[in-house]
Amino acid sequence: MSGAGEKIAVVLLSGGLDSATTLAVARRDGFACHALSFDYGQRHRFELGAAGRVAAAGGAALHRVLRVDLSAAAGFGRSALTDDIDVPKDGRATGEPAIPPTYVPARNTIFLGLALGYAEVVGSFDIFIGVNAIDYSGYPDCRPEFVAAFEALANVATAAGAAGRGRFRIHAPLMELTKGRIIRLGLDLGVDYSLTHSCYDPAPDGAACGRCDACRLRLAGFEAAGVADPARYVARP
Amino acid sequence: MSGAGEKIAVVLLSGGLDSATTLAVARRDGFACHALSFDYGQRHRFELGAAGRVAAAGGAALHRVLRVDLSAAAGFGRSALTDDIDVPKDGRATGEPAIPPTYVPARNTIFLGLALGYAEVVGSFDIFIGVNAIDYSGYPDCRPEFVAAFEALANVATAAGAAGRGRFRIHAPLMELTKGRIIRLGLDLGVDYSLTHSCYDPAPDGAACGRCDACRLRLAGFEAAGVADPARYVARP
Repeated sequence: MSGAGEKIAVVLLSGGLDSATTLAVARRDGFACHALSFDYGQRHRFELGAAGRVAAAGGAALHRVLRVDLSAAAGFGRSALTDDIDVPKDGRATGEPAIPPTYVPARNTIFLGLALGYAEVVGSFDIFIGVNAIDYSGYPDCRPEFVAAFEALANVATAAGAAGRGRFRIHAPLMELTKGRIIRLGLDLGVDYSLTHSCYDPAPDGAACGRCDACRLRLAGFEAAGVADPARYVARP
Repeated sequence: MSGAGEKIAVVLLSGGLDSATTLAVARRDGFACHALSFDYGQRHRFELGAAGRVAAAGGAALHRVLRVDLSAAAGFGRSALTDDIDVPKDGRATGEPAIPPTYVPARNTIFLGLALGYAEVVGSFDIFIGVNAIDYSGYPDCRPEFVAAFEALANVATAAGAAGRGRFRIHAPLMELTKGRIIRLGLDLGVDYSLTHSCYDPAPDGAACGRCDACRLRLAGFEAAGVADPARYVARP
């Protein structure tokens, strides 16, 4: 899948809509893509299977699942995704904190740190992440200032950066897009969204709840894009 | 060990001389210390036992060993510490690269990322790391610009930082000290260096090789401090 002259990109791939689109953008831009997923103790571990299918369908040269335990048992937790805390449903009441309980402390810093080490090992200077600061949950580590700060760090933190062998770039091609535009872009690039999984709190068989923030943002995005969401839902709002 | 009013610090603890001294500095500064060590596939895994003994003797409130596989089997490796690459002995020949093969790609970024997530979970804003840019091996992620870049990142990457609940500080109290002065400082603070382990390539029973960079820096430091190194060596140069 990867030609001899292709540059390698490392693509963070959760198996959701945004990261599937990001992989398609990296392929469009001519990169041989190494997709990285994380088994971190998430409630919606179901997404890892989706990530494997998305990687294969999206033409990734390689897909790796890295383990890093961010659960309460490992001393982390404190998130609705990794701990015994309810995933909020049906939107937020007024007066609730701007950052929801599904926030996982320092998750994207940890994932990008591992992606950076991996990139240095395989000789890549291009890391793609599907973060977005328009139709998103308010996580601090999805904002442009976070991406810029990590890129600055990457270039002083590594042998490859410090020796000037290249300049690391953190690509966040979805940052300024609405969810509807992300979906239109992905469809143009041939993404099969039926393979993706977004729900934070799926049924045991993987059907999406239709009520968590991730489902609500996804459904609103498909509506804005004017196409049907091919995902399987327990219930649609 | 930790009073109700004490602020928590997260201290990266490898079990070596520098991190043992850093723990002592954090205790001197009045912090209740949560010590974090990493089981990352290192050749000198022996250091983890040392870390446990240093944490206990140094008055850490808690010691945790986190697993994050940076070995070749997990797609990383490419370091003499995590792969089938010889650890250099007896110093460097002229013309060798400034950054030695014991460099582990993005190691301190990965470790500090995990420490940052852990700090946010336990309500700490103070992370201590024993990096040093004087008598060191030339690793890019031990330099002041790395520490400053990570501190900047920490304050935009987290809910606690973004919401202004506090300001994360990355403390690197050894940064500008020679190895000899680090040892003098630690002795003044009661560090028992016989518990520490520095060697990259120990014998099966844990005895230090006396010839790798870590041993050489350590031995020169004890000589400069004018005290005997209590570590057990296979051979001293």
